[in-house]
Amino acid sequence: MSRKIYINNNFYKLNKFLKIKKYTNIILLLDNNVKKFCLKKLYEYLSNNIKKKILLLEIKSGEKYKNLKTCINIWNKLTNLKISKDSLIINFGGGVITDLGGFISSLYKRGINFINIPTTLLSMIDASIGGKNGINFKELKNEIGIINNPISIFINYKLLFSLPQKEIISGLGEILKYGLIYDKRLWNLIINSNINKINWKFIIYKSIKIKLSIVKKDPYELYGYRKKLNFGHTIGHAIESFYLYNKNPITHGEAIMLGMICESWISNIKGYLNKNEYKIILKGILKYIKIKKIKKVFFNYIINIIKNDKKNFNNKIYFVLLKKIGESIYNIEINKNTIIDSINALNNINN
Amino acid sequence: MSRKIYINNNFYKLNKFLKIKKYTNIILLLDNNVKKFCLKKLYEYLSNNIKKKILLLEIKSGEKYKNLKTCINIWNKLTNLKISKDSLIINFGGGVITDLGGFISSLYKRGINFINIPTTLLSMIDASIGGKNGINFKELKNEIGIINNPISIFINYKLLFSLPQKEIISGLGEILKYGLIYDKRLWNLIINSNINKINWKFIIYKSIKIKLSIVKKDPYELYGYRKKLNFGHTIGHAIESFYLYNKNPITHGEAIMLGMICESWISNIKGYLNKNEYKIILKGILKYIKIKKIKKVFFNYIINIIKNDKKNFNNKIYFVLLKKIGESIYNIEINKNTIIDSINALNNINN
Repeated sequence: MSRKIYINNNFYKLNKFLKIKKYTNIILLLDNNVKKFCLKKLYEYLSNNIKKKILLLEIKSGEKYKNLKTCINIWNKLTNLKISKDSLIINFGGGVITDLGGFISSLYKRGINFINIPTTLLSMIDASIGGKNGINFKELKNEIGIINNPISIFINYKLLFSLPQKEIISGLGEILKYGLIYDKRLWNLIINSNINKINWKFIIYKSIKIKLSIVKKDPYELYGYRKKLNFGHTIGHAIESFYLYNKNPITHGEAIMLGMICESWISNIKGYLNKNEYKIILKGILKYIKIKKIKKVFFNYIINIIKNDKKNFNNKIYFVLLKKIGESIYNIEINKNTIIDSINALNNINN
Repeated sequence: MSRKIYINNNFYKLNKFLKIKKYTNIILLLDNNVKKFCLKKLYEYLSNNIKKKILLLEIKSGEKYKNLKTCINIWNKLTNLKISKDSLIINFGGGVITDLGGFISSLYKRGINFINIPTTLLSMIDASIGGKNGINFKELKNEIGIINNPISIFINYKLLFSLPQKEIISGLGEILKYGLIYDKRLWNLIINSNINKINWKFIIYKSIKIKLSIVKKDPYELYGYRKKLNFGHTIGHAIESFYLYNKNPITHGEAIMLGMICESWISNIKGYLNKNEYKIILKGILKYIKIKKIKKVFFNYIINIIKNDKKNFNNKIYFVLLKKIGESIYNIEINKNTIIDSINALNNINN
């Protein structure tokens, strides 16, 4: 957990870091979108000497490329280029790039240094923070992975202003989650804000602080506490996996918001959360997304994915649930029928 | 580094461990040889309740299966069996199984518990100890890997008595290395022993102690000290890779002994080791192996592999060399021509 996180509206600190560290090679891993929209904004802060050292490795953008095939492809390139262990990999992009790049870096020659430069709200406040790296395997999200931290994270929140609204809302899903599980004030702040007038530096700082204070208590997810971060994700991940190979995949944040509705509904049905707060949560989330209905014929598919969830043990399905807005509990066993009921409840919401 | 290592002539401690821990599932990863020759010797110590819980996952024996394809195959099976994060993987076998199984376990659902039960001398005193896990990639040994320790290691040295002589000699290569880099008394003890009368419990204990005392100073190979364990391996690994897809691959120990001859020769030529001690080393190693000559046409292939060695940096090739028997130095830059000269010297040895 020795990483240092910088939150700024520029990349001066990054340039200084690269100048001091003197890596033999610098690999910049990015996707075609980041190359198109963000690379120039990074390069304007880097000295010519550093730019000359950088080798670009470009992959196609999209969650469906977060797999072993892409890793093998990159490891092939690193090996062919004879990149040595004293080099640096910069993961420049959203959650796919930081998850994938962290995984690739952690295993290449048993681990080389890497840093994250998140370009989306989601990766700034979640994916690039906390050390989880990994890839999808057989339609299971992050089924193969490793916990390992980058040596530094450089956040330039000005990159957000070039993002489409969809990406901002995707990140908001996780920020709302931080509010629901840990900090009612953050929830209220987002729900009552105009999305165009948010103080991003503060919100990013606050979100990272919440995430790290939870991660710190259980960095390797050994004791369960870290599972709190998975609120909305048990059902949300399954919904996301379900849409992954769809013509119109939904964003992570959208899937997680749908998951949070289901899991808040379960929290209420199981007597942990009162009905009034469930309604407040539903209304809050519906400010940002439209409900997507899930046909009955796919319920078994969803349940099957949930059965493989990493939070399970003893062949039982465990959830993080809410006691109230800002307070959560974990390791609550929930049976298949209740999960199906919650998806039915989701399908019956009109918006 | 929280693993506990047991050295016994039985598996009572293992049975007790499995009884206390109550894992949901126990996966026993092994190859066809271990299944044939060692499984019965393990099962006779396990209670029926534990045996009932065990799921065997069998792979084909051999270094050439230590690759991503085998990992994908095993991950597929684990996923299909819905093996949850509170399960245990037992890596039961030689270095290939413990390297591969540790890698598979460390990444499955971002890491599940695993233990090692080494069945060969080499894995008892080296491969299963120290936390290095990994696979070969594009003919490069352990190019993709991770440093992570099993929660326990159970060594039953009685398994050695069923091994072919070839396997014992393969393990001796690493024990001789421990002697050369760190402990002259261990070198003398092995060189002057009758191989059939060795006190294995003591030699295994001593070897592990040396390895751990080196690893402890630099567990992630960040400072260089751990590189000492790579004496003989820069050239040795290249020779081993070269023979990997050969009809008659050589053992790891044999390759490393050839590598140690070359690297002792370089230590002498470069003025670190005196001629007399070089001759003692050569004579000692030749007690156990025959020289295999390497044709000139393959020199470039060997050099190319060495250039990708994980110990390199700044695009230069670095070696561990000997100052005398029992004392080593690391990060010594050696150029391509000296390496070729050392292989020529190897080719000119008559035995």
